[in-house]
Amino acid sequence: MSTKPVDISQSFVRDLPAAVPKYAGFPKYNFVGGHNDPANVPVEALRAAADAVIAREGRTLATYGLESGPLGYRPLRTWLAEKLKAHAGMTCSADEIMITSGSLQGLDLVNALLVARGDTVIVERDTYGGTLTRLARAGANVVGIPLDEHGLRIDALKAALEDLKAKGIRPKYIYTIPTVQNPTGSVMPLARRRELLALSQAYGVPIFEDECYSDLVWSGERPPALYALAEGQGVIFIGSFSKSVAPALRVGYIVAKWEALSRIQALKTDAGSGALEQMVLAEFCTKHFAAHVPVLNKALRAKLVTLMEALSENFGTSAEFSDPPGGIYLWVKLPDSVDTQHLFQVAAAAGIAINPGPEWSTDKAYAKSRLRLCFANPSHETIRAGVAALAEVCAKEFGVPTRIANVKKS
Amino acid sequence: MSTKPVDISQSFVRDLPAAVPKYAGFPKYNFVGGHNDPANVPVEALRAAADAVIAREGRTLATYGLESGPLGYRPLRTWLAEKLKAHAGMTCSADEIMITSGSLQGLDLVNALLVARGDTVIVERDTYGGTLTRLARAGANVVGIPLDEHGLRIDALKAALEDLKAKGIRPKYIYTIPTVQNPTGSVMPLARRRELLALSQAYGVPIFEDECYSDLVWSGERPPALYALAEGQGVIFIGSFSKSVAPALRVGYIVAKWEALSRIQALKTDAGSGALEQMVLAEFCTKHFAAHVPVLNKALRAKLVTLMEALSENFGTSAEFSDPPGGIYLWVKLPDSVDTQHLFQVAAAAGIAINPGPEWSTDKAYAKSRLRLCFANPSHETIRAGVAALAEVCAKEFGVPTRIANVKKS
Repeated sequence: MSTKPVDISQSFVRDLPAAVPKYAGFPKYNFVGGHNDPANVPVEALRAAADAVIAREGRTLATYGLESGPLGYRPLRTWLAEKLKAHAGMTCSADEIMITSGSLQGLDLVNALLVARGDTVIVERDTYGGTLTRLARAGANVVGIPLDEHGLRIDALKAALEDLKAKGIRPKYIYTIPTVQNPTGSVMPLARRRELLALSQAYGVPIFEDECYSDLVWSGERPPALYALAEGQGVIFIGSFSKSVAPALRVGYIVAKWEALSRIQALKTDAGSGALEQMVLAEFCTKHFAAHVPVLNKALRAKLVTLMEALSENFGTSAEFSDPPGGIYLWVKLPDSVDTQHLFQVAAAAGIAINPGPEWSTDKAYAKSRLRLCFANPSHETIRAGVAALAEVCAKEFGVPTRIANVKKS
Repeated sequence: MSTKPVDISQSFVRDLPAAVPKYAGFPKYNFVGGHNDPANVPVEALRAAADAVIAREGRTLATYGLESGPLGYRPLRTWLAEKLKAHAGMTCSADEIMITSGSLQGLDLVNALLVARGDTVIVERDTYGGTLTRLARAGANVVGIPLDEHGLRIDALKAALEDLKAKGIRPKYIYTIPTVQNPTGSVMPLARRRELLALSQAYGVPIFEDECYSDLVWSGERPPALYALAEGQGVIFIGSFSKSVAPALRVGYIVAKWEALSRIQALKTDAGSGALEQMVLAEFCTKHFAAHVPVLNKALRAKLVTLMEALSENFGTSAEFSDPPGGIYLWVKLPDSVDTQHLFQVAAAAGIAINPGPEWSTDKAYAKSRLRLCFANPSHETIRAGVAALAEVCAKEFGVPTRIANVKKS
């Protein structure tokens, strides 16, 4: 018998995603990813929460699911039910909330429930890149609906639904990020939410509502969730603590009626999400969440202002953007001559990470000269230096901006 | 337009797993699940670990992956590399270890890497039920290999490999739990490990080695892992902290050469496993793991003795089992007249949860009168009372045992 080592790559399934490169640390100017402001991680309160909850309930770690069952730690679900009522107008019980490992696991589970190869789904034209890569991998046909400053355009949605209906296609869902849209930052007004819901009902297409950024509204006010307006019928909702407390805590949640949640639970084969994170969050949130979020938002808003000022200073009129009402990112339009997928590469070589528009859009041509810049993690100083460095790279590669800080580029 | 609520079940994909029932709490006599001994959760040490690590590194929670990249918290991976060297003879760097949300996520990721619908895989005839349900859902053809008191039978494996080869089928992997086999508890001796590896190499079939119970060996001694003997070539290894520290902490790991790990990383779309759990575990393990495990094992061994005594007392010669060298479960043979899937149902009605053999075996006829009893979680008193209750139910339903505690059943 041979004793040649087994070549495991011979056993790989077809169509795997490409191998990842080895991690080489964060770039110097990191304008990507949902990272948050290190200064606003509530370290002392989390420390106290961990100490109290481990002392009080540590022995329950001996059981999967603690004593709360597979939906997740009950005190966290109970707090969430109250929070979602007060914040988003949602009426749901703790038994209609499932804790997930970040809202990303929620995304995967909802897709597993609803999307088979060849199915059609509707998304916002500009949307979270991770949703687009997941749907591509799932073999879905993705229809993107244009946006305006209030989010998803209802006229365009109606036309798309009508067009699909004429073709005999019923989309599996309308995926929307109505509250702090990713990447545009818009908050959909109440009237449009009602119109969206009416279309969902008229065409029998469920809504998949992603609220992972909805705590980060500067004013602290937001319209009711679509889930609230629909009283949960025909809507699945996902949320997260990543943006409002800390992204490394992988705690998100799904809200759905039991008919759907009982199926999603069957698809969640990980024996529960991390208990310690859930316990610490429940302890923290009960005492501190309401006070924490406005402080965080003030800091984020200040960083956004720094980013907008740095863009205006370094790109002048070459960079177009609106002042979003919340979030951790800015969606920026550069001159048409700029290809942001190419800019992404030359910027990376200069230690600057950006999200090129086409990765965040179903319309690659529309998004060609757009990019997303995340501002929560870098310091004010790094934001300023990073934008200046990006302008230098962009000017060198594309000839725009022609002036940086009023110095004409030769 | 209609305003009828959308019926979301119309959008469900086909072939979903059945809806789960609502959680109704743990049964009175809970002999299922990988739960552990509440008295041996190291509460005070975990509390101190949480306090220290949050104080020192809490601000890094602002970034996904902390500052360690997508493979997981580096201090935990570094500690694991040392632990796997000392304990299992494995040579691997921290960059060949990926932290997962329990070893169950590891199981899912390895299957996503290697198993497509219609593929053939080899498993131990009696094996972890969750592996069997996953493989059924993945559409794999599962070939079970009989076991003896030393684990996987090499003669039977060779015959199966030869048979498949004659049919032109190369299995995607040989899945084995060589160290504290689930459910039999056996530990495969070194010589047999070498034979298994030789067959893997001769037939070009990778080994998928599951070591989630391997810390729980009463003697504290175990042969080198297959991964160690193969120097990592053609072997993927998964492990867990669930059984040795606490199951509610969802922290497991995959060890693999970068060729495979770089592909697995691309399949792991959850933006990292829970950071707080990783940080607390790293802090705890560095100081306390080595001392903690023997104390836990002593307590588990004592519970096993209680279970075996209770079985002998209540079932007499009707219950056959061997005294396993480690683990948290006992694989029990009842008389042929007992159908444990039926026993499962009548026992559940009496508040007793058991794993019926057919759910833990590829050979449903072989396993018909077998069952798995987990003993780590219930107290000594509950073990005794639960086994007595099970004997009552079994006698009533199947006429065996005919005597319970020397009292003849009429």
